[in-house]
Amino acid sequence: MKTPEVAENSSDLSKSLANVRVILSHTSHPGNIGAAARAMKTMGLEQLYLINPRNFPDAQADAMASSAVDVLQNAVVCRTLDEALHGVVMVAGMSARVRDISQEVLTPRTAMPLLVEQAVQQPVALLFGTEMSGLTNDELARCQIMIRIPVSPSYTSLNLAAAVQLISYELRMAAGLGEYVPPLVTPAPAEQVEGFFLHLEKALNEIEFLHSKQPTKLMHKLRRLYSRARLEQEEINILRGILTLSTEYHGKLKKELVDKS
Amino acid sequence: MKTPEVAENSSDLSKSLANVRVILSHTSHPGNIGAAARAMKTMGLEQLYLINPRNFPDAQADAMASSAVDVLQNAVVCRTLDEALHGVVMVAGMSARVRDISQEVLTPRTAMPLLVEQAVQQPVALLFGTEMSGLTNDELARCQIMIRIPVSPSYTSLNLAAAVQLISYELRMAAGLGEYVPPLVTPAPAEQVEGFFLHLEKALNEIEFLHSKQPTKLMHKLRRLYSRARLEQEEINILRGILTLSTEYHGKLKKELVDKS
Repeated sequence: MKTPEVAENSSDLSKSLANVRVILSHTSHPGNIGAAARAMKTMGLEQLYLINPRNFPDAQADAMASSAVDVLQNAVVCRTLDEALHGVVMVAGMSARVRDISQEVLTPRTAMPLLVEQAVQQPVALLFGTEMSGLTNDELARCQIMIRIPVSPSYTSLNLAAAVQLISYELRMAAGLGEYVPPLVTPAPAEQVEGFFLHLEKALNEIEFLHSKQPTKLMHKLRRLYSRARLEQEEINILRGILTLSTEYHGKLKKELVDKS
Repeated sequence: MKTPEVAENSSDLSKSLANVRVILSHTSHPGNIGAAARAMKTMGLEQLYLINPRNFPDAQADAMASSAVDVLQNAVVCRTLDEALHGVVMVAGMSARVRDISQEVLTPRTAMPLLVEQAVQQPVALLFGTEMSGLTNDELARCQIMIRIPVSPSYTSLNLAAAVQLISYELRMAAGLGEYVPPLVTPAPAEQVEGFFLHLEKALNEIEFLHSKQPTKLMHKLRRLYSRARLEQEEINILRGILTLSTEYHGKLKKELVDKS
């Protein structure tokens, strides 16, 4: 048995992922173990525990794990749930069905913040049952939290590795590691945007586009379009460049006309 | 080409899923197409479009689809992105990398509500690129929304079907079809819980448990424990039954002691 890694005594939720182990109980298909390892690693989870897997290690598991074979190589194979839960203070079990056991069932989104907060200081576990029948009643009795992934009532057959993927993702989100994506749009300041609109209006007036219809209404529609796009400085430069060139071209044509007459 | 199904002109977000198509572009492995179909169906999505799949139809696709083969059978195979986008008013593309294209990238959780709101009335699309290189720049240029799934920086290799699973799940959540799970715990009302605590205190006094230490502090700790569990009526009945039997047993022993003396 590996010693459970304990995160530093820190309030940093993001460190909590190191304290989360994924336990797969009596998995039938080694391909699912490999795919689960890959799913875990993409979300920053590394600790895989396997209770009596039918075939492990296995070439199909390695193939499905892709570059997450290290998760398989470090996997802890156990004979009992007790072994897999050694040192764990909170267990969340996945359940597809409502059982006669009167235990509260949470959605992944509600449950994962509870697990993450606990995992800041102490090891927690996510427990997944077999492909065919899920967790046994004895396994469910060891869970403090039961989770049901919201699936379509008309087709509930979620693949095991897909369930691991969804839960690991929600865990990563709950740990605050998923929300931030650096914005790739850097909108230009108001005065620059306004400068463009004035330039546009002037250019449209030159070609007498705004004379024909309701000029205010048309400009409002154009403002709406470009406001929605949140123009960047460079885009404003490009658009104003087009307007300038257009005006110059018209000027050139007018000059030629005058020269010819 | 199938005619796009249009949801009824309704404010019901839950109907929007019928207006969402999943487009897989130039997929290499038919197993991924099958797994993607299964992932879609578990989340209530049915419309699969395939742009030039390398092998389709394919036995491996069918095997991985499990009971979602109907999604494969109804899949629309297209030669071009234009065909696949026919009738679509909003396209969200998945991108693993930051490109030189200055387009805004959203997280799935931020993006899916935008898609769902649009899909209430008009068809929208989720566009997934190849396993090896994702979407091409030409494909990305057709997307109004770019989505990056938050993955671990140290291992970003999300499987295609796993990406479809995560995005379909977030879409289902955004459509309001994922939050509600009927609570299986029905906590007892306050007076019942209080009755149990008074009974417990009385029973602990009888066995002189509360005499030894700080009684108030101990009762507070016991209250904390049982409050956290949110006792149900039946559980209170069981616990009070134990207390009652315990008191009766002590009474019986005391009586025997008196009789013997």
